[in-house]
Amino acid sequence: HEAGPTFSSDDGFFTFKPDGRLVMDFTGTRGSDYDARNLSGSQVNSVRLGAEGTMGKLGYHFEVDFAGNKTSLKEAYLSYATPVFGLPSKFYLGNFLKDLGTEGSSEGVTTPFMLRNAAATVGEPVNSYFGLGGEWKIFGPDWHYSLSVSGNSPAASTTGSETDSVAYLTRAHWNPLKGGDGFLHVGAWYYYEKIGNGVASINNTPAIALDYNGNLAVSASSIADPTQDRGVGYELGGVYRNFWAMGEYGKRTIDSSSVDAVTRHGSSLAAGWMITGEKPGFSSRGGNWQGVHVSDPLTSGGWGAFELAARVDHYDFTGAPRGGKGISYTLGLNWYFNDWSRLMVNYIRWYTDNKVGSYQGPDWGNSLGVRAQVVF
Amino acid sequence: HEAGPTFSSDDGFFTFKPDGRLVMDFTGTRGSDYDARNLSGSQVNSVRLGAEGTMGKLGYHFEVDFAGNKTSLKEAYLSYATPVFGLPSKFYLGNFLKDLGTEGSSEGVTTPFMLRNAAATVGEPVNSYFGLGGEWKIFGPDWHYSLSVSGNSPAASTTGSETDSVAYLTRAHWNPLKGGDGFLHVGAWYYYEKIGNGVASINNTPAIALDYNGNLAVSASSIADPTQDRGVGYELGGVYRNFWAMGEYGKRTIDSSSVDAVTRHGSSLAAGWMITGEKPGFSSRGGNWQGVHVSDPLTSGGWGAFELAARVDHYDFTGAPRGGKGISYTLGLNWYFNDWSRLMVNYIRWYTDNKVGSYQGPDWGNSLGVRAQVVF
Amino acid sequence: HEAGPTFSSDDGFFTFKPDGRLVMDFTGTRGSDYDARNLSGSQVNSVRLGAEGTMGKLGYHFEVDFAGNKTSLKEAYLSYATPVFGLPSKFYLGNFLKDLGTEGSSEGVTTPFMLRNAAATVGEPVNSYFGLGGEWKIFGPDWHYSLSVSGNSPAASTTGSETDSVAYLTRAHWNPLKGGDGFLHVGAWYYYEKIGNGVASINNTPAIALDYNGNLAVSASSIADPTQDRGVGYELGGVYRNFWAMGEYGKRTIDSSSVDAVTRHGSSLAAGWMITGEKPGFSSRGGNWQGVHVSDPLTSGGWGAFELAARVDHYDFTGAPRGGKGISYTLGLNWYFNDWSRLMVNYIRWYTDNKVGSYQGPDWGNSLGVRAQVVF
Repeated sequence: HEAGPTFSSDDGFFTFKPDGRLVMDFTGTRGSDYDARNLSGSQVNSVRLGAEGTMGKLGYHFEVDFAGNKTSLKEAYLSYATPVFGLPSKFYLGNFLKDLGTEGSSEGVTTPFMLRNAAATVGEPVNSYFGLGGEWKIFGPDWHYSLSVSGNSPAASTTGSETDSVAYLTRAHWNPLKGGDGFLHVGAWYYYEKIGNGVASINNTPAIALDYNGNLAVSASSIADPTQDRGVGYELGGVYRNFWAMGEYGKRTIDSSSVDAVTRHGSSLAAGWMITGEKPGFSSRGGNWQGVHVSDPLTSGGWGAFELAARVDHYDFTGAPRGGKGISYTLGLNWYFNDWSRLMVNYIRWYTDNKVGSYQGPDWGNSLGVRAQVVF
Repeated sequence: HEAGPTFSSDDGFFTFKPDGRLVMDFTGTRGSDYDARNLSGSQVNSVRLGAEGTMGKLGYHFEVDFAGNKTSLKEAYLSYATPVFGLPSKFYLGNFLKDLGTEGSSEGVTTPFMLRNAAATVGEPVNSYFGLGGEWKIFGPDWHYSLSVSGNSPAASTTGSETDSVAYLTRAHWNPLKGGDGFLHVGAWYYYEKIGNGVASINNTPAIALDYNGNLAVSASSIADPTQDRGVGYELGGVYRNFWAMGEYGKRTIDSSSVDAVTRHGSSLAAGWMITGEKPGFSSRGGNWQGVHVSDPLTSGGWGAFELAARVDHYDFTGAPRGGKGISYTLGLNWYFNDWSRLMVNYIRWYTDNKVGSYQGPDWGNSLGVRAQVVF
Repeated sequence: HEAGPTFSSDDGFFTFKPDGRLVMDFTGTRGSDYDARNLSGSQVNSVRLGAEGTMGKLGYHFEVDFAGNKTSLKEAYLSYATPVFGLPSKFYLGNFLKDLGTEGSSEGVTTPFMLRNAAATVGEPVNSYFGLGGEWKIFGPDWHYSLSVSGNSPAASTTGSETDSVAYLTRAHWNPLKGGDGFLHVGAWYYYEKIGNGVASINNTPAIALDYNGNLAVSASSIADPTQDRGVGYELGGVYRNFWAMGEYGKRTIDSSSVDAVTRHGSSLAAGWMITGEKPGFSSRGGNWQGVHVSDPLTSGGWGAFELAARVDHYDFTGAPRGGKGISYTLGLNWYFNDWSRLMVNYIRWYTDNKVGSYQGPDWGNSLGVRAQVVF
């Protein structure tokens, strides 16, 4: 089964597939020294409508997210596939998900845990996971390479009164071993970003345990007058039969015109087991997460697929005078009903040590999240 | 004719129906002692895009509303239909319209008047008609029962810094008489809601005559520091051939940590006549409004269906020291072009007696509204 | 090829066509005396989802735009086509693009340049290009006539506390010459608008060179306490084989209860050449731009169509004591890949002379814009 119906004109020239997505989270936190962090609540994490398809050789794809009663433009690009040096290659123009490591380049509905890993979260540039610009990807038999130039992702206003930040990003991966039973994955990414004048400061506070709880975050502390930043990441992992493991490290250095340069580190170590024997969702072609093909779907009378996974994440912002740090241990159980819907349970034992904000000092706690999602 | 096309994958496993809605109001008010209430204007009341369908046994439905250039998430749930005790039964997970009486549980495009009745409007909990959570419905031959637990409907922000309000709602209806000529409807609903810390006060000002005019509302007056509330409602009515009548009463009691508990009452008495002989749109199965099946649609060369209806609504917020009250008499003429489009004309003679705000004291006036809607 | 697939119910009664649009701009400005005007940046200019189709004799069409992460309702109407005096005629109810001259009545994705012309921009009423109300259009063999009454387009809020502005607009065009090789176009439009009490002032600052740069605009200066306004426009142009030319003049007079009446003028002179021989996109039936039919589409192995065009625009707000003026010379090259996608390059030599705001006095500069768009 394909995830959703595709419609074609009679001559096959025009194709159209409606895109939709519904992701709901039910979460709770206990054990923090701060009462305001011990919250329970539910949210619609993502609701999307969109379309993708082809008009002859030209591809199009756009999706708009409406979670939180806000409109947020996600994928919005034209693509053109054509061989380069005899190899499959694709060009993108528009707003696309950047090729930022194994998880930054994966849609959030395909990653094995409810939050992206610390390497991507800490390493991402000012203009974030999406960017508006151009990208080129080329695929070899056991590698891929990408190069992109992108400005700000569509911002809160369509009117500019400042020049955009512009990021130059490149990434490659290689499979030194690749066979019927699995593959070894080695990858790296690097970006340079010229930060626009309109960015007066950089102030990241990534969520350390699920998205809902706004009080539960690591405070990187604010960096004033940023001028440029660079990020680098390394990936090492692989898939063997129905097991997978992935380690990723990300580093970001921010230059400022008024304070010293700041370096941040994020790292992640994760492993998983498809209990029901399916191949893990990590792709050897794109070097990212692309979803699990379920052998015996619930919706056809089977039991679906089950996955057990664990991850350790380190957030280190201590390169700045008032930067905090955090650790999270996540245990996840994923129940894939079929190729497009799953139920996730994440238990997170977390630790933050913030130097600024309302929740300073060492704080340990536990969070539990349940996510139901359907994507087509 | 079904309302809109449904698309299927070749094996019938995946179905997809685009959902769309367009509701436009043209309204005017005259006769108020306050000039600012004598407004005319038009608005797009509702514009929606969405999708619904099935993936095997799993159902999905989501709709997003864009009226007022704002994004507002409406239906967004997964459903699963399975017999319980040998009876048809359905489970919902996500954001759904609560089973709050005859009109609260009906989509606004199916109710016989342009505004929902006073029983639902006065009785509804903090987290309103929609809620994010789980629901179970079971249907007997002449009754239905439902039970739901739901938190806040998706709010203005996806980040929580407070625990949600949580509502526990149950409703049942029974048809003591049911035959080929019609049925008698008896129903009741009850909810208990634990109000989240983030709700500093409850301040309802329901529109008494059409949606557009923001100055024309009953002021319930603000209740500070609410902790919990309860609602109860009773329904009695029925359908006989092409006639219908329905009385509904709703009561809501709000407890506060700083002021006395407050009780509010809303009641509604309505009756209607399908002039062209169709069965009224009130369903004996769900105990709510579900649309009229037009015998002789305009779009097939006929004249469509006509309905004449009248309603009296009482809003009573005088249980609070500064709560107001209101009465409205509505006369409605509905012209159903076909199963999915209608033109409504509502004339409302209204009265408000507010104790707070800009429009205090007894005030009588007349409002006229015309609504055109298409829904698929 | 039609632009996108249309789906029908089995009996052809219900039709449904998904509407989508993606428009991306990459722009830069140099040469201004003000550094803040010399910006570069990219934006998603328009992303739309919608639907259109028929239910028997009734047509429906709605589109929602999500550019800038904002929700903006565009087309949202029902239509009914029926002969009047034996001539084709159409009625619209809802939110529609007004028949405001050759470019105001054209969708932005069909006009030959990236910005609409100065006649439409200067002449448009308070409630802008779209309006919520009713319209009637009738088409003769070599003319059309339209009449509309419309209130505010759906505004930022669905709740009204002021009466709407209401515009009465009429337009006609005539083709005194019309043959196989082309036609001559003569047209005129006029509106009267009663301005709602809620409009405290009118303060237009139209972009003179591309949409992105918020600092690069002509300042009309603010007109306090407007009560009513009138607009009039004249159109003269034509199509000869693969050449076209169009001159348009627009005038708007604004009355105020506290200052003298103000008159504004905008004019535009443009011409173009379809290098590859196609007929220009200007329609003799509707008197507006409706898209080019490409003979040899890129997507079918051809080269697509190329158009070279030039335009001069004058913005004259000097009728007000502190109103500015502006001139722009635009050179455009359009590459139509196929009937629904094109790449535009616009070079603009512009001049502004503002009396208010941050960019006063004579200022010359150059802007370059590239636009990629796909529409179905």
